[in-house]
Amino acid sequence: MPPSNPDHILLVDCPDCPGLVHAITGVLFRAGANVISNHEFVDTDSGRFFMRTACSGPLDDDAVQLAVQEILPAGSSVQMRRSIPRSIVVLASREHHCLADLLIRHEYGELGAQILAVVSNHENLRPLVEKFSVPFHTLSHEGLSREAHEEALQSFIAPLKPDYLVLAKYMRILSPGFVNRWPSRIVNIHHSFLPAFVGARPYHQAFHRGVKVIGATAHFVSNQLDEGPIIMQQVIPMDHSYTPRDLERAGRDIERTVLANSLRLLNEDRVFLCANRTIIFD
Amino acid sequence: MPPSNPDHILLVDCPDCPGLVHAITGVLFRAGANVISNHEFVDTDSGRFFMRTACSGPLDDDAVQLAVQEILPAGSSVQMRRSIPRSIVVLASREHHCLADLLIRHEYGELGAQILAVVSNHENLRPLVEKFSVPFHTLSHEGLSREAHEEALQSFIAPLKPDYLVLAKYMRILSPGFVNRWPSRIVNIHHSFLPAFVGARPYHQAFHRGVKVIGATAHFVSNQLDEGPIIMQQVIPMDHSYTPRDLERAGRDIERTVLANSLRLLNEDRVFLCANRTIIFD
Amino acid sequence: MPPSNPDHILLVDCPDCPGLVHAITGVLFRAGANVISNHEFVDTDSGRFFMRTACSGPLDDDAVQLAVQEILPAGSSVQMRRSIPRSIVVLASREHHCLADLLIRHEYGELGAQILAVVSNHENLRPLVEKFSVPFHTLSHEGLSREAHEEALQSFIAPLKPDYLVLAKYMRILSPGFVNRWPSRIVNIHHSFLPAFVGARPYHQAFHRGVKVIGATAHFVSNQLDEGPIIMQQVIPMDHSYTPRDLERAGRDIERTVLANSLRLLNEDRVFLCANRTIIFD
Amino acid sequence: MPPSNPDHILLVDCPDCPGLVHAITGVLFRAGANVISNHEFVDTDSGRFFMRTACSGPLDDDAVQLAVQEILPAGSSVQMRRSIPRSIVVLASREHHCLADLLIRHEYGELGAQILAVVSNHENLRPLVEKFSVPFHTLSHEGLSREAHEEALQSFIAPLKPDYLVLAKYMRILSPGFVNRWPSRIVNIHHSFLPAFVGARPYHQAFHRGVKVIGATAHFVSNQLDEGPIIMQQVIPMDHSYTPRDLERAGRDIERTVLANSLRLLNEDRVFLCANRTIIFD
Repeated sequence: MPPSNPDHILLVDCPDCPGLVHAITGVLFRAGANVISNHEFVDTDSGRFFMRTACSGPLDDDAVQLAVQEILPAGSSVQMRRSIPRSIVVLASREHHCLADLLIRHEYGELGAQILAVVSNHENLRPLVEKFSVPFHTLSHEGLSREAHEEALQSFIAPLKPDYLVLAKYMRILSPGFVNRWPSRIVNIHHSFLPAFVGARPYHQAFHRGVKVIGATAHFVSNQLDEGPIIMQQVIPMDHSYTPRDLERAGRDIERTVLANSLRLLNEDRVFLCANRTIIFD
Repeated sequence: MPPSNPDHILLVDCPDCPGLVHAITGVLFRAGANVISNHEFVDTDSGRFFMRTACSGPLDDDAVQLAVQEILPAGSSVQMRRSIPRSIVVLASREHHCLADLLIRHEYGELGAQILAVVSNHENLRPLVEKFSVPFHTLSHEGLSREAHEEALQSFIAPLKPDYLVLAKYMRILSPGFVNRWPSRIVNIHHSFLPAFVGARPYHQAFHRGVKVIGATAHFVSNQLDEGPIIMQQVIPMDHSYTPRDLERAGRDIERTVLANSLRLLNEDRVFLCANRTIIFD
Repeated sequence: MPPSNPDHILLVDCPDCPGLVHAITGVLFRAGANVISNHEFVDTDSGRFFMRTACSGPLDDDAVQLAVQEILPAGSSVQMRRSIPRSIVVLASREHHCLADLLIRHEYGELGAQILAVVSNHENLRPLVEKFSVPFHTLSHEGLSREAHEEALQSFIAPLKPDYLVLAKYMRILSPGFVNRWPSRIVNIHHSFLPAFVGARPYHQAFHRGVKVIGATAHFVSNQLDEGPIIMQQVIPMDHSYTPRDLERAGRDIERTVLANSLRLLNEDRVFLCANRTIIFD
Repeated sequence: MPPSNPDHILLVDCPDCPGLVHAITGVLFRAGANVISNHEFVDTDSGRFFMRTACSGPLDDDAVQLAVQEILPAGSSVQMRRSIPRSIVVLASREHHCLADLLIRHEYGELGAQILAVVSNHENLRPLVEKFSVPFHTLSHEGLSREAHEEALQSFIAPLKPDYLVLAKYMRILSPGFVNRWPSRIVNIHHSFLPAFVGARPYHQAFHRGVKVIGATAHFVSNQLDEGPIIMQQVIPMDHSYTPRDLERAGRDIERTVLANSLRLLNEDRVFLCANRTIIFD
C-alpha cells in the first residue's frame, strides 16, 4: 500500500495538447516516483492544462522538474518541490479574530505554514501575538505617506523571504506598486460578498438591503480593489433580526474559517491561477 | 389543546410605542380569539413595530380589524383576514424550470395559492401549462412598443384580480409605470446574487470571476433594477470544473426551490416590508 | 480547443500498482483519443485504483476496452462506452414529489436517462405520469405474498432491460432475492439521515428529538435496510417551530433535488463503488 | 427610539391558556418596562407556553417576577433577571480546538460568560490556558474509581458556583449521579451526528460508510449517552477523498463554531427545554 504522506509535489501549468498526462506520468514512472494522487484539469476557455501530482520515492526534484519541462511546449510552467511547510507574514490592523485563529492553528501545527512575523499598523494586538511567541512588529502609518509606509513595510518583510503575505483584516489599501512586488502572493479575507457591497461599512449596506445570507471570500490581491481571483467562499443564513453588529459577529466566524482553510489549500499547493479565476485541486 | 390550523391572521405594521403587544392582544382576548402563534419585531432603525398573530375562534374579521385600528397611533396599517389561499398570475418567457415547479405544487395543493393564469411572451410553454389545466395566454411583444405590450398585459391581468404577479423567469424588464400599478405585489426570482452581477449573462460573469458559490434571490420588484426587497436567498457551492452551462443547471435547481418557498411565505402572510428590506415571520 | 462534449467514457476499477495512469493514457493516446477530462483516485484502504476518462475521437470502444484490459492486473474491471443516455424504470407508491420532479426533467431532456416506465403498487399517480406520455403500470400488492408481488414486478421490468431501477418513494421493502437480481443497480431516496432514525415515522422521531437539521440521502439498495453505499446527501436547517408536517414538507424539497442530482451523477458514469462507500468523480 | 441593549430578561415556561401574552405584557407595562423584543411559542404537543421578553427600564426584578408568577397557573416557571454574563467551568481532556476557541472569545469579551476555571484530566492544555490567565486545574483520573474522580471534580467545581459546565471535548463519560447534580446545566459538543454513529471512532465509521456530510451537535447532557436535548447542529459537505484524518480536521472546525454559538444562545437565555427538545428564541 502506498504511503499516505507524499513528500514531493509536481505542479504543471501549460498549453493543452494531446498526450500530456501520458507523457508527464511517463517521466515520473521512469524516475521511480510512486504516485499518491493526481489531479488534472483543462480550462477550455483558455486552452490551458493544469496538473498536480503528489508522489513519494527517492526523487531528485530538480532532475524531475527539468525532465518534465523538456517534454512540454513553450509557455509551460513546471515546479517540483518537497511538500514542506510554507512561510508567511501576517498583516493585521486592530481586529483580532482572524489573527487569533491563525495563531492557534500555528501553535498546534495545523496551518501548514510557519508564521515568520505579524506586522500591524496598530499596537493593540501585541499581547495576543506575543502569547504565542510569534514576533510582532508595529509599523504605524501615522505621519507617513502611503509610499513611505509601504516602503517601511517592504523593508521589514522582504528580508524574511516569506512565501505569502496574509492580510488578516489589514485595513489599509495596498498600492499597485506594493502589490506588484508580491504578484499572486498576497491573500486577503473579505467580509460579505465579492463583488457585492464594494466600499465602506458593508455590514450596514447588507443590513439595509435585508440580505438573507452573508459570507466571506478569501482571494488573491490584485490591483483591482477586492477583485483578485477567489480562493474560497462560504456563506451563512441571516434574517431580519440581525443588527449590523450581529451581522459582523456572524461574519467574523465565517471569515476566520474561510481564511484558515484557504491558507491550507495554498500551503498544500492546491491553488492554480487561470486568468482571473482559480483552479482548486482539493 | 389549541387547534393547529389557525383560520384568522392579524397583521400589524405601526409606529412603535410602549404597551402595543398588551393592547393588541387585549382586543383579541376580548373578541374570544384563541392565539395559536404570535410574532412581533421592532425595527429600531425605523422605529416601526410589526406583528403577525394567527388565531382561531368565531371571529368577525372586520370588527377585530376596526377595534385594533382604533387603539393604534396614526400611520398604522392593520389587516385581519381569513387564512385562505391567495391568487396569483404567473408571467413566464421560455424557461420552464420555475414554472413547472409551481404547476406541480399547484396541482397538489402545496402552493398556498391558486394560479389564475400563466401569461408568456412566447408560445413554447403552452403544452406544459395545459397539461395541468391552467389557462395559458400568449402575449407576444413582437412589433409592439413596451408601453403597448404592457398595456395588453395589464388589460389581461387586471380583470383576474390576482393578489400577486409572479415572474417565473419572465425575461422582459417591466417599466416603472407597470410596476407602480402593482406596488409590492410583483415577485421575481433572480439568478446569482443580488446585488452582484447585475446585467447580462450573469452565469458567464460568475464563471470568469471564478465564484465558489452561486445562489438565487426571490425579491419584490421595485423600480430599481433587481433592487427590490429580498424575500429569500439560498446558495450552493461551486468549483472551477463548472462550465457556465453547469452553473446554469445548478442555478435552475436553486431558483425554483427559492421561488416556491418565498411564495409560501408570501401566501401565508409572513412577509412584511420595512423600507428596502423584509421582515419574515417564519 | 478540444470539443466540450465527450462522446466516450472509459471506466477503470483495478488493484493499484505503479504506472497505471501512464499505461492507460498510453493506450488512449495510441488509439487517437482526445482526452477531455480525467479523474483518478486511489483508495488506500482497499488498495484499489479508480479512473474515469472522458474523451472524443473516432474510437472503437470494444478495441480500446480490450487493449486497456490487457495491460491491467487480474481483478480489474474496464468499461469503454458511448456517453449516451441511460434507461431507467421508476418505482413509486403514493407520493408524487420525487416522481413529478423526474418527469419534468425527463420531459425537458435534463435527466440524462430515458424513463422506460413507472410502476406503482397504487393507482393514484397515473394521471400525473400519463400527462407526460410515460407508460404507467400498476402492480397492486393486495392479496399477494411478497414473493408473488416481486415476481410480478420482475416479470414486468426485466423485459424492459433498464440500466437502473429508481425508487422514487417506493414504500415497500424489497426482499434480498429481488435486490440480488439488480446488484448496485437500484437507487433509493431516503428521508432524514442515514444511518439515523432507521424505522417508522422518521419525521416524528426527528421532531421529538428536536433536530436542527434534516436531510435526504440517495443510496444504492443493498440487503441491509437503508445501509447501501451513499451517493449524495444534503441537509437544510430546521428549528423548533417546524411541526412534523413542516419537516415533511421541507424534506420533500430536499429529497427530490438529491434524487435527481444523484441520478445525473449515475447517468454520467461518475459513481464508482468501493466496499460500502462510493467514489464520485464530479 | 428604544435602547438597543436590554438589561432585563423575563423567561416564562407555563401551561398554555388563553390570554397569556396579554396578561404577562400587562404586568410589564404597569411596571414601566420598555419591551425591546418578545418571543413566544406554544408547543402543541405538550400544551406548554414559552416566552422570552427582553426589556429595559428601572425595574425591580424580584417584584416583576412575583407579579408574573401570581397571574400564571400552577406548574409555571418564571424568571426575571438582569442580562449579565453567565459563569461557566470548562472541562477538557487533551484536544485543544474547542477550548482554544472559547479562550479567545473569552479574552475579547465575546463569549457572554466568564470562564471561572478549566479542569482537565490531563496536563497538556495547561500552557494554552495559562496564556490567557484563566485558572487551570488538573484532576487526573489515573488510579481513581469513577466515583472518586467525579467526587473530586464536584468538590473542585461546586464552590465556584458556575451557571453551566461546558464539556469542550471532555472524553470521559459522566455518571448519572454526577449528571443529576447539574440537571440541564451541562453542555457537550459531539462530533458527527446525533443520534448517528454512537460509539467509538465515529470518524472512521463515517469514512467507511462514505458519508457525504459531517457535522457537530451541541446538546445538554442527560443520562442517556449522547441523547440530551439538541441546542445546535451544523454540517459541512464531504467527499470520498477525505481520509478519517481529514474528516476529523473538518469536524474540528465545525465543532468549535457550534459549541461557541450554542453557548452564546445559552448565555443570552435563548434556550428553553421542552421534554427532550429545545425551543430556541434567536
